[in-house]
Amino acid sequence: MDCTSIIGTIAATLTTASFIPQVIQVVKTKQTRDISLSMFITFTIGVLGWLIYGILLNAMPIIIANLVVFVLTMIIIVYKLRYR
Amino acid sequence: MDCTSIIGTIAATLTTASFIPQVIQVVKTKQTRDISLSMFITFTIGVLGWLIYGILLNAMPIIIANLVVFVLTMIIIVYKLRYR
Repeated sequence: MDCTSIIGTIAATLTTASFIPQVIQVVKTKQTRDISLSMFITFTIGVLGWLIYGILLNAMPIIIANLVVFVLTMIIIVYKLRYR
Repeated sequence: MDCTSIIGTIAATLTTASFIPQVIQVVKTKQTRDISLSMFITFTIGVLGWLIYGILLNAMPIIIANLVVFVLTMIIIVYKLRYR
């Protein structure tokens, strides 16, 4: 793997994994007041777009990364709607 | 522009713009308790990675989208650190 691909892989891993601490925090505290619902809904629709984009290109890394992010942001949205 | 590129552009616009409502909310309310600092720091480092990736590929859409996201998430981090 060349240098550019390595940096892209690190970037993708970080932006994907970053949602894990937010999921842990909302699940633990059930406090979601300061989280913007608009942000997570817009972001999740965008992630669905990336998922379709990945499927159309048959690009497995894009598909997997966005599937993981989709699951994580959906958990945050469910908690936001449940514990406003 | 083909269908795949259009979907990619819509996805990029949504995931980039999604941070605007969160920025507006933290600037207005100065309330950041429920936002995970770990999430935004990890995400922002990832975005820096995407920025370097875009520069190495000389891919202007990747550079611009990630520059915008970087500025927006940095504002959220500054507010999070200032108003814990």
